[in-house]
Amino acid sequence: MSLKLTILGCHSATPKVNAHPTSQYLEINNTHFLIDCGEGTQRQMRKYKVGFSKINHIFISHLHGDHFFGLIGLISTYGLLNREKKLHIYGPKGIKEVTMLQLKVSNSWTKYPLIFHELASAESETIFENDKVIVKTIPLTHRVYTNGFLFTEKHTLRKLHIENIAQYNEIEICDYHNIKAGKDVILSTGEVIKNEELTLPATKPKSYAFCSDTQYKPAIVPIIKHVDLLYHEATFLEDRADLTERTKHSTAKQAAQIAKDAEVSQLIIGHYSSRYDNLLKFKEEAQEIFNAVELAESGKVFMV
Amino acid sequence: MSLKLTILGCHSATPKVNAHPTSQYLEINNTHFLIDCGEGTQRQMRKYKVGFSKINHIFISHLHGDHFFGLIGLISTYGLLNREKKLHIYGPKGIKEVTMLQLKVSNSWTKYPLIFHELASAESETIFENDKVIVKTIPLTHRVYTNGFLFTEKHTLRKLHIENIAQYNEIEICDYHNIKAGKDVILSTGEVIKNEELTLPATKPKSYAFCSDTQYKPAIVPIIKHVDLLYHEATFLEDRADLTERTKHSTAKQAAQIAKDAEVSQLIIGHYSSRYDNLLKFKEEAQEIFNAVELAESGKVFMV
Repeated sequence: MSLKLTILGCHSATPKVNAHPTSQYLEINNTHFLIDCGEGTQRQMRKYKVGFSKINHIFISHLHGDHFFGLIGLISTYGLLNREKKLHIYGPKGIKEVTMLQLKVSNSWTKYPLIFHELASAESETIFENDKVIVKTIPLTHRVYTNGFLFTEKHTLRKLHIENIAQYNEIEICDYHNIKAGKDVILSTGEVIKNEELTLPATKPKSYAFCSDTQYKPAIVPIIKHVDLLYHEATFLEDRADLTERTKHSTAKQAAQIAKDAEVSQLIIGHYSSRYDNLLKFKEEAQEIFNAVELAESGKVFMV
Repeated sequence: MSLKLTILGCHSATPKVNAHPTSQYLEINNTHFLIDCGEGTQRQMRKYKVGFSKINHIFISHLHGDHFFGLIGLISTYGLLNREKKLHIYGPKGIKEVTMLQLKVSNSWTKYPLIFHELASAESETIFENDKVIVKTIPLTHRVYTNGFLFTEKHTLRKLHIENIAQYNEIEICDYHNIKAGKDVILSTGEVIKNEELTLPATKPKSYAFCSDTQYKPAIVPIIKHVDLLYHEATFLEDRADLTERTKHSTAKQAAQIAKDAEVSQLIIGHYSSRYDNLLKFKEEAQEIFNAVELAESGKVFMV
């Protein structure tokens, strides 16, 4: 098991030569996800050599251009590459209509199945689940309907305590699955061997929370409590904290406050306003509140 | 007067790290135009430092993604930069609906006027004209409705022959405009001084023809006859000439044949299929037909 996050772009608003809009590639428990897809994302995927064809699920936080204008290009490229497997898109209501119209005017319907999951709930909900990962929305507060996403490994099996098991000749390899699942063993004598004696605790399921774009919203703290990795937008420094209310964005300090209150292991900040040249200031201001802060930058990889 | 063409992208289909889809920036007679706008065009405009805010007219050849998926991002960026002046978009029917829907779902209507000129004619037509430049469509044959564009300087005024004029004290500066416009001068004696004596020939109006994407189409030759600069797509080499019929694209040789028949001064080829690594082959094959060939590449500038 592992969790690996690659930042493909982390700047707000307008793309520039070295400022790419939001997109992230997440590998969690051997499942690959794309989160947001600003213009130029497919090029960034190539540049950083992430698994282009491993993506089956794309999560779009909201329909501002710097978070989804690259989606149609990626969808089209998959078509040109003769993709056959399904592609699931999760995003706000409207994402299907706008994508389908673009495919219609360009007369380039995909031959692979394109499945839209339009989101409209104001409450956190489970939007994806398989045997490895569960994905829930994190309702955010922005100028348009916006969700963050919480990715959590499914509860993992306990580990075999091989030395203790070896003391019981009667226990065979075919019993291991039940033991890992937490069951006790009843020997032929009728003696019950408690599961705790035969196993070690499971690895803690790893988790990642993506929160962009949003105004400071303490209500998300219970949803993201104790995650290993939190990405939280930090569009402004304190000098322009006055803009957070109108723009519905956060400051670096506010992102850090959320991280502190949620007791996360590691905070990543990004979505910097283009008015700032010195990004180190974001880290400095955040660290006044919460120490384990890293700055997002294109190509940077975070492992848990 | 001058004509300056900057290639922003010239590859077909899927963007890659060093293969940008079609877009060109044209300065002609001090007027600035953007031609096609594949994904990532605004980033390329920044990279090559073309006049980002000088663009008031954008011409889109057709609605395949590699020619227009960057348009919505550029429109949005102009909005974020507080643009106030009008932006005119010329392109196939459908371009307005798809753009407006994207602005609607992202709740980001532009504050500046966005004016669409939807094209549907199968004949060449004048779509833009001011006192400096005239722009006509070049109907092409592709899988969807497609136009090339012919940019021609407006017929220029004759130049004053100052030495000859100086021989007539009676001719004053206020007469110069009529003389440059080709009129004769009648002296107070009744003597007529022929315009040819007072002027030198005007500079030949410069012209640029953009032809992408298209199957080999000799019918365009009369429209682009004698242009100074012709960009013509060359998606395939001879080895895959069999694909031109189905895909409605041209080979390098076919582009060269058009250039030869139209007696243009200079041919630029581009829109290379991603199956080819060695682009020099395109130039070699084209030069079997027409010698003055250059390969398009991102950032390359052509002056007339």
